[in-house]
Amino acid sequence: MKFVLEKTDGQTKARAGMLNTQHGLVRTPVFMPVGTQGTVKTVSPQDLTDAGVQMILGNTYHLYLRPGDGLIREAGGLHQFMNWFLPILTDSGGFQVFSLAELRKIDDGGVRFQSHLDGSYHLFTPESVVDIERNIGADIMMVLDECVSYPCPENDAEESVRRTLLWAQRSKNRFQETLPSARLQQSLFGIGQGSTYSDLRRRCAERLVEMDFSGYAVGGLAVGEPKSLMAEITDQSTEVFPQEKPRYLMGVGKPEDIVDSISLGVDMFDCVIPTRNARNGTVYTRRGKLVIKNQSFQRDFQPIEESCSCYTCRRFTRAYLRHLFQAGEILGLRLTTIHNIHFYMRLVEDARSAILANRFSLWKKDFFNVYYANHS
Amino acid sequence: MKFVLEKTDGQTKARAGMLNTQHGLVRTPVFMPVGTQGTVKTVSPQDLTDAGVQMILGNTYHLYLRPGDGLIREAGGLHQFMNWFLPILTDSGGFQVFSLAELRKIDDGGVRFQSHLDGSYHLFTPESVVDIERNIGADIMMVLDECVSYPCPENDAEESVRRTLLWAQRSKNRFQETLPSARLQQSLFGIGQGSTYSDLRRRCAERLVEMDFSGYAVGGLAVGEPKSLMAEITDQSTEVFPQEKPRYLMGVGKPEDIVDSISLGVDMFDCVIPTRNARNGTVYTRRGKLVIKNQSFQRDFQPIEESCSCYTCRRFTRAYLRHLFQAGEILGLRLTTIHNIHFYMRLVEDARSAILANRFSLWKKDFFNVYYANHS
Repeated sequence: MKFVLEKTDGQTKARAGMLNTQHGLVRTPVFMPVGTQGTVKTVSPQDLTDAGVQMILGNTYHLYLRPGDGLIREAGGLHQFMNWFLPILTDSGGFQVFSLAELRKIDDGGVRFQSHLDGSYHLFTPESVVDIERNIGADIMMVLDECVSYPCPENDAEESVRRTLLWAQRSKNRFQETLPSARLQQSLFGIGQGSTYSDLRRRCAERLVEMDFSGYAVGGLAVGEPKSLMAEITDQSTEVFPQEKPRYLMGVGKPEDIVDSISLGVDMFDCVIPTRNARNGTVYTRRGKLVIKNQSFQRDFQPIEESCSCYTCRRFTRAYLRHLFQAGEILGLRLTTIHNIHFYMRLVEDARSAILANRFSLWKKDFFNVYYANHS
Repeated sequence: MKFVLEKTDGQTKARAGMLNTQHGLVRTPVFMPVGTQGTVKTVSPQDLTDAGVQMILGNTYHLYLRPGDGLIREAGGLHQFMNWFLPILTDSGGFQVFSLAELRKIDDGGVRFQSHLDGSYHLFTPESVVDIERNIGADIMMVLDECVSYPCPENDAEESVRRTLLWAQRSKNRFQETLPSARLQQSLFGIGQGSTYSDLRRRCAERLVEMDFSGYAVGGLAVGEPKSLMAEITDQSTEVFPQEKPRYLMGVGKPEDIVDSISLGVDMFDCVIPTRNARNGTVYTRRGKLVIKNQSFQRDFQPIEESCSCYTCRRFTRAYLRHLFQAGEILGLRLTTIHNIHFYMRLVEDARSAILANRFSLWKKDFFNVYYANHS
């Protein structure tokens, strides 16, 4: 994988770039919809490409448990298995082990946990996770890290940084000793931790850079800390990370957080928000969110958003979508998901165009003015 | 609507024809997937046309209760509301009142019932149902009939035929006194009843023909009676119905029943079987059904059917579909639905081609030989 930095904004740290992978080019900033179990929930690969998706995320924890990375390897890798031939990034499973699994027990060797599906016992080590991600065959693999919750005592955060760095080095070693299952190139990204402690975050990021990964992620954010802290840490992290490598803010986020983080020099994002909200009937527009189930949309024969060119907006009205949700029809979940994904794609594409055209700050101001217009 | 009979088979009563509606031509024999609540469950209009669907059925009972025929009329009719611009047929709601609603009370005036959704009270009369179907705006409307269960005492069946004929005439009168909501042509079909009593069935069919409808349906079958009786009644009915009008066997059925009924002179079919079975993970192939969730498909990297050209078979393996069902992913429901609908479309298209090529009997024999090959 090769990253080309095309442009850095003059007034902010916003960047436009290009990730060159064996499954094609990815223009950054990029938002990756989350395909937890080998599908982005409710939509097909065709729906994703139609909505402008360039790259998706797969969850190593879920795929390892079901259908199993061995089966995915037999299928020819996750791209083949799910019929998605654009780039894929897999997380390390660390976050899921710490949020979903039961009875986890962590030491320097790795983390033992019980499957949330059937209670079976498993062990993730930095090495085993690299092996699993090799089997899955994603274009970008993430190292196993230790995620702490917020708030976190400084001692615990320090200990987690120590372990995260230890694991990062072991991941890197394993990565260098192994080859992809298919004849594909895979890249490995490091993940910075350190909770909300600036010194820890900086030290962790610096050590990761010394290890020389293909890209760098900010992990452990968007877990309940104030927005200002999230911005501060993101800002500090991108100061440490090298210009010529892609930066990825994991698990973020809301449209406003993405726009803010782009201006702090982040290139890559993933989050379940657009897809999960869609399934709850919450849809995004330039002027904020709508709850499509509301009575007020019963006889509203406009599309979700007049200016939107997604399949849903080109074909269906708010009244029809509301009816589908009221009637419990699955098509409703897909149509709102298509719209929300398209909204996110347009958001990062617009940010990119603005960066390339030297008008990012103006665009950002306009975005917030319109997005919050109905909130005041 | 105009029906053109293109060809009648020499050895059987199978027919190939063309329904000419304001929403386009429909080649018969035709199978109509069921779109109960303004969507064929799990799929979009695009999925339907991609699978070769020519015409769908909407359920008047469901649409009347939710979102309401008034709202559908405001939306510009069901075609506009659900973004489906090929022909639609609406049933009369009779069957649903007798199978879903509670506390129904029937007399010659109509049928009172409680909504299965909220227990509210409603009245369907032959006239109100025509009005509702006018609001929905389907190309083909069905008259309100009285459905009896199987088995049914002869006296009750006779009484239901009397009422069904009374209602058919009142429906026809109302139809002639009213106009479509949109500037569309709508046609009205009569429905034959009479349970499993030949004389009643014949008398009912003859009286309907005297009333002169645009097409004739056989109702009240596939409700538990033996296959041989279903065939006998269908055969008798198509003897009475005029050659130059389309014949519709309501609620049928399994692939084998469709093939058998085509040879008895039926032109139109609808049934929830392909879509409902798909959602249960049962898929159709030329060689019979498969239960995609079975363990045996865990590592089966073939499509459902090698020779099938549907989106699902062109892109996904049995192993992947099984995984989606195991993981409870909605995409699985849609992919199996697309396949089953495509299977049904291919089935009736193949029957039609065989009729036109003077080889229907041979084709039918081959179909059964292959379809039952694994059942012996």
